[in-house]
Amino acid sequence: MNGAAALIHTLVAAGVDTCFANPGTSEMHFVAALDRVPGMVAVPTLAEGVATGAADGYGRIAQKPAATLLHCGPGLANGLANLHNAKKAGTPIVNLIGDQAHGHRPLDPPLAAETENLARTVSAWTRTCLDVHAVGSDAATAVAMAKAQGGRIASLILPSDVCWQDGAVPSPAVAEVPRGRIDDARIDRIASLLALADARTVLLLGGEALHGRGLAAAGRIAQKTGVRLMTNTSIRKLARGRGRPEVQRIPYGVEPAVQSLADTTHLVLAGARRPVLAFAGPSGPARPEPEGVSIPLLATPEQDIEDALERLAERLGCPVSGPWPSAGDRPSAATGAVTPQAFAASLAALLPDGAIVVDEGVTFGRDAFSGTAHAAPHDWLSLTGGAIGSGIPMATGAAMAGQGRRVVNLQADGSALYTVQGLWTQARARLDVTTLIFSNRRYAILFNEMQRVHAVPGAQSAALLSLDAPALDWVRIAQGFGVEAARVDSMADFNRLFERSVRTPGPFLIELMVP
Amino acid sequence: MNGAAALIHTLVAAGVDTCFANPGTSEMHFVAALDRVPGMVAVPTLAEGVATGAADGYGRIAQKPAATLLHCGPGLANGLANLHNAKKAGTPIVNLIGDQAHGHRPLDPPLAAETENLARTVSAWTRTCLDVHAVGSDAATAVAMAKAQGGRIASLILPSDVCWQDGAVPSPAVAEVPRGRIDDARIDRIASLLALADARTVLLLGGEALHGRGLAAAGRIAQKTGVRLMTNTSIRKLARGRGRPEVQRIPYGVEPAVQSLADTTHLVLAGARRPVLAFAGPSGPARPEPEGVSIPLLATPEQDIEDALERLAERLGCPVSGPWPSAGDRPSAATGAVTPQAFAASLAALLPDGAIVVDEGVTFGRDAFSGTAHAAPHDWLSLTGGAIGSGIPMATGAAMAGQGRRVVNLQADGSALYTVQGLWTQARARLDVTTLIFSNRRYAILFNEMQRVHAVPGAQSAALLSLDAPALDWVRIAQGFGVEAARVDSMADFNRLFERSVRTPGPFLIELMVP
Repeated sequence: MNGAAALIHTLVAAGVDTCFANPGTSEMHFVAALDRVPGMVAVPTLAEGVATGAADGYGRIAQKPAATLLHCGPGLANGLANLHNAKKAGTPIVNLIGDQAHGHRPLDPPLAAETENLARTVSAWTRTCLDVHAVGSDAATAVAMAKAQGGRIASLILPSDVCWQDGAVPSPAVAEVPRGRIDDARIDRIASLLALADARTVLLLGGEALHGRGLAAAGRIAQKTGVRLMTNTSIRKLARGRGRPEVQRIPYGVEPAVQSLADTTHLVLAGARRPVLAFAGPSGPARPEPEGVSIPLLATPEQDIEDALERLAERLGCPVSGPWPSAGDRPSAATGAVTPQAFAASLAALLPDGAIVVDEGVTFGRDAFSGTAHAAPHDWLSLTGGAIGSGIPMATGAAMAGQGRRVVNLQADGSALYTVQGLWTQARARLDVTTLIFSNRRYAILFNEMQRVHAVPGAQSAALLSLDAPALDWVRIAQGFGVEAARVDSMADFNRLFERSVRTPGPFLIELMVP
Repeated sequence: MNGAAALIHTLVAAGVDTCFANPGTSEMHFVAALDRVPGMVAVPTLAEGVATGAADGYGRIAQKPAATLLHCGPGLANGLANLHNAKKAGTPIVNLIGDQAHGHRPLDPPLAAETENLARTVSAWTRTCLDVHAVGSDAATAVAMAKAQGGRIASLILPSDVCWQDGAVPSPAVAEVPRGRIDDARIDRIASLLALADARTVLLLGGEALHGRGLAAAGRIAQKTGVRLMTNTSIRKLARGRGRPEVQRIPYGVEPAVQSLADTTHLVLAGARRPVLAFAGPSGPARPEPEGVSIPLLATPEQDIEDALERLAERLGCPVSGPWPSAGDRPSAATGAVTPQAFAASLAALLPDGAIVVDEGVTFGRDAFSGTAHAAPHDWLSLTGGAIGSGIPMATGAAMAGQGRRVVNLQADGSALYTVQGLWTQARARLDVTTLIFSNRRYAILFNEMQRVHAVPGAQSAALLSLDAPALDWVRIAQGFGVEAARVDSMADFNRLFERSVRTPGPFLIELMVP
């Protein structure tokens, strides 16, 4: 068996059965092997950023890695931005990259590039396969490395000769690396702190603390102690909506972020990193919490936060609770003019049970999170690394993993344009994705930032930050990529189309004209 | 004056007056300064690959660098593929990248990334500006470094605090680094060789030998000695068409490339690198030339090949020639079915005088080069680094530099999709670009490569290599980005639309249905 076949056999045996691909000539033996080796679903993408962003969305929902298949050098480079987002999220990905045959590379053919150096900038583990006999074991190791510490990027570079040579042997799965266990002394210290705490203490949740066992334990702790549950601005996956513990998010903006933590005395890191503002300006803070706040660590995102929270709940004597009582009514759909608040109300009213919300809403979408706390139960995934262009691909991958759950992509127009090609993959795979384009025809966040630098946009800068002249026509763009679409400029029309879309299998795009 | 203003003053003083931009928050002070400092034209792009590819096209036509303006980390990553192409072409580019403020970066905000490491993979010179007092001199150095050795990428990383602080001083232009001069002994050696040569000797031209003074001298040498003028598959810029010396190109495919050099005894490298095939397979050659051929070096692409060729022509006693006599008639436009040969004939017949052809035609477009040798005088630019997605951006930048020259982009459909966002910049700037999409709705080159690996595509692999189900609708996509477009499936319709397009200011896209 050749290296490519052994690679696919090994991945499938380790549970990696979905591959988001944008192959080139150096990956042809892998592509050919897909026809002979059963068990791997290969999803075509038109650009590498779609493949890597889809692998991110898939990993967040499936709780296991997808593979990518990228072309050597520049192909990998095109996928780095969404790998950066996945790295910041802690998503497991087996990142496969083809390369020149070993003997050809020193001749400096056109596509020779620093593939390993590029991969290392986003990967916890990077290896170039040196020998056809090592393909199986390298692939099995890559899967284990991707799953370690809650999710990481493992990049395996495959020179084409390693794939075409015979003599390869598939490898059985490598045992998972256990996550770091929090010791009893630390659990006791945090328990003593929380036993005396009130709402000025924040349990800042991240990673696995935001859904499933971790979130259930955090909810019990909050009910017993009265501490606030919060999370950072960037969210890998938060289970929320009616019946689930309510977790507030530190807002993106500087002033709202500072305000959200204003009275905090203790900020307990529970699988979350210490908060930091996205950018520093000439004045103002770098971090959102008040000076002098105490910041004890329960667990880093790499450690076993689910176990730590469950032991903490036991230690505090928290009763096992049923569904979380909802603090408010599910809103009614809004009518009239399109505003951020009206949109959030309609989304909360109409979101189907079990939906997956992908949030790259940026400026217009910023109220959607707080406005949907009492919607039907759903998962919320957001941009995590600040590299815009994650929404359409992430929705694509989440839908592949979601197996019929409706994905609703809250999508800023400027950000959508980086990876708009992902719409075609949604059409090809007939994925249940509703894309909501917030069409304000500008980089609204950058207009806001201009004001923060005390500048009123002049002719040159305003032109640079605008998406008009000519305006982008999202309906035609979507149709061009094979996705049905329509434009609306009132909440009534939005409600009607959105309801129809979530009931109709396959993708749909709504261009929502927003102020 | 703040750092951003000093930066722009310095660039403009050094002749860098065009900037292809996709800024983010960390670049806002640069954007604000554009309103205050005159002389810099900032061109908006919707994705970084468009900005870098446009800078490549601009540099090839303008013979001087454009600047880019990219967002930190992942923004740069998105632009690397077309910087790779520019690096392989030897195009001068001043690559500007914003970054986190110095004090903020250690806090690991979401967009913190290995910006310097990423930049180094494509840059001959990389520097992070450390101090507002150094912005001016760093920028002037970057321009000089970009212009050195015939054209390179110089990357200057600008932490945002360096841009917002006051106390910066613009810097005058730094003197250009002279190119390496070829010594007399080498000129004599090559002259002795060529004096006895015939058509089995190939003068392999590259870089500055492919237009202007360099090409004129090469033409004199060929007329006098009978040697063949050839160039590598990848072409930075070749001046060709009626009245110019005819330069043959080594074809892309393995067998045609080997055939093109079959009788060669001497392969003189005149500003060109030694040929190498794009990929190696399990069998077959790695290089196209016959074994045992002698490969003397006249000059590398980094050295002063124009001077070397002129001195060589003098040493050989070549008379100064007028326009090169054309070896054939300009073809007539073809009618009937769409074939590669018919397309080449129509292009040769209808190409306007002074046009710029951008060639990312890949499979269908492969005959267009040889078929247009006797067209009206034009420049030919091709994909140089194998990183597809260069055509639309390169055409955009070439049109900015061309100032009214019609740009004709021969564009494979699969390749076009990586950077389709560039169409919007063509519409915004009302650029005179005619994009010809060769719509075969598949990655045809990869179907061919599959056959080379002795595999008939099965269901999975054929689906991965196809662009149908759903078919991409290029007319709607183009219109969505603000570019007028039409679909044709006969040469008669193509001729009519193409003629109208080259007479009508602004961009136009023709989706040519090809077999």
